[in-house]
Amino acid sequence: MSQPSNPDIGKLVWAIPEGWIPGWSNGPEPELLSHEAACILNPNDRDAHVEITIYFEDRGPVGPYKLTVGARRTLHQRFNTLTDPEPIPVSVAYASVIRSDTPIIVQHTRLDSRQAENALLSTIAYTE
Amino acid sequence: MSQPSNPDIGKLVWAIPEGWIPGWSNGPEPELLSHEAACILNPNDRDAHVEITIYFEDRGPVGPYKLTVGARRTLHQRFNTLTDPEPIPVSVAYASVIRSDTPIIVQHTRLDSRQAENALLSTIAYTE
Amino acid sequence: MSQPSNPDIGKLVWAIPEGWIPGWSNGPEPELLSHEAACILNPNDRDAHVEITIYFEDRGPVGPYKLTVGARRTLHQRFNTLTDPEPIPVSVAYASVIRSDTPIIVQHTRLDSRQAENALLSTIAYTE
Amino acid sequence: MSQPSNPDIGKLVWAIPEGWIPGWSNGPEPELLSHEAACILNPNDRDAHVEITIYFEDRGPVGPYKLTVGARRTLHQRFNTLTDPEPIPVSVAYASVIRSDTPIIVQHTRLDSRQAENALLSTIAYTE
Repeated sequence: MSQPSNPDIGKLVWAIPEGWIPGWSNGPEPELLSHEAACILNPNDRDAHVEITIYFEDRGPVGPYKLTVGARRTLHQRFNTLTDPEPIPVSVAYASVIRSDTPIIVQHTRLDSRQAENALLSTIAYTE
Repeated sequence: MSQPSNPDIGKLVWAIPEGWIPGWSNGPEPELLSHEAACILNPNDRDAHVEITIYFEDRGPVGPYKLTVGARRTLHQRFNTLTDPEPIPVSVAYASVIRSDTPIIVQHTRLDSRQAENALLSTIAYTE
Repeated sequence: MSQPSNPDIGKLVWAIPEGWIPGWSNGPEPELLSHEAACILNPNDRDAHVEITIYFEDRGPVGPYKLTVGARRTLHQRFNTLTDPEPIPVSVAYASVIRSDTPIIVQHTRLDSRQAENALLSTIAYTE
Repeated sequence: MSQPSNPDIGKLVWAIPEGWIPGWSNGPEPELLSHEAACILNPNDRDAHVEITIYFEDRGPVGPYKLTVGARRTLHQRFNTLTDPEPIPVSVAYASVIRSDTPIIVQHTRLDSRQAENALLSTIAYTE
């Protein structure tokens, strides 16, 4: 089970229909700042060039937001901190499609600390 | 990776076995109203005409509930606000099947604020 | 999209590696009793005869626990209330395999109310 | 549906892009100690020899961490308690790839008790 001989793991296209950045927080930042993240794993031997497109309920898509996930690295990208081409508004429903030029795996996580105690959700994103 | 040349993403049939609209809430509404949602993403170039059927433990299915998700749009549909053909009762176990005439992706989310602090669950729905 | 002409939805074999019935609860019962459930949907036209086998860390499997999920019905089966062949102990790690003679869909949910506020987790179970 | 004649269930390669061991806890230990676990089910008739590799954002992978999951057993392995070749640091983003020599099923769960009340997340891991 040596690393060099393993075939690539992952897929090129991922989707996350749920998206909502909570509008406020409780607790020490940045750990307990309300946030939503795309956790991306690139276990393969080439850098992954990733493009995220954001979809809304009442206007056209925005993007691509461009990221690089290095070979044999993970990136836990918070949607809150994406700024180019524009920040994602808080308290607004959105969704995302994530495309990569080399196979990756994507998991969606939200930490919601709007009330005094935090809540968590997570799921492996959709792929095909 | 330009949008026009991408093939469709998604599937036509989805299922969510878990369904339960919490019977009460704490916190400012509508954001912290207890609710359950089907987050639907239609990243493709045609409108999606969606039909939801609701299944119960002790009576026959109800539906279809009809929705349209525009091309390149998302819709975070709360089960709480479906009314036609009839509202879904709270504090009752149900399940759902979601069918579309064009590919979509579906994620299931619940915000439960019955106690003083909220709780969250989410998962990509089942598809085949 | 009329119901009679639809092909079956679902799979015959499902697995849930995570299992843990919290040992205590807070809040009004039965709604806020800590529990773990297999939410089973049978959207098809024949009753589903279901067998659950429970796996442990330090002893052999127990089961089958037998259930019937009617045609076009859902069953949100709490693991807490299974008794035949034996109850599942609380505060013990377990896992489950769920087999059916007709296609079903399975989602795993836990409500944990051990502390003053409840927590939730959910995921579509594994199938192949 | 007798056990001996059933074919194997599961897959050989799994991935969990999300990883984060909360840095502190509230509540009685060990049950309410903040932790993150890979729940592994081996419902088959041979022991599973499992290797976990951990990926980080800013350095190369660490591992393999070696485990054995007995035939017809589950193992709820907390990432917190892995020590060989080295402990996984708390409050650091990581990801994991899990390989086995015989089919298994993997589910990812986190209990976060950093605030006074606990939060939970869970998802079936990615496989292919």
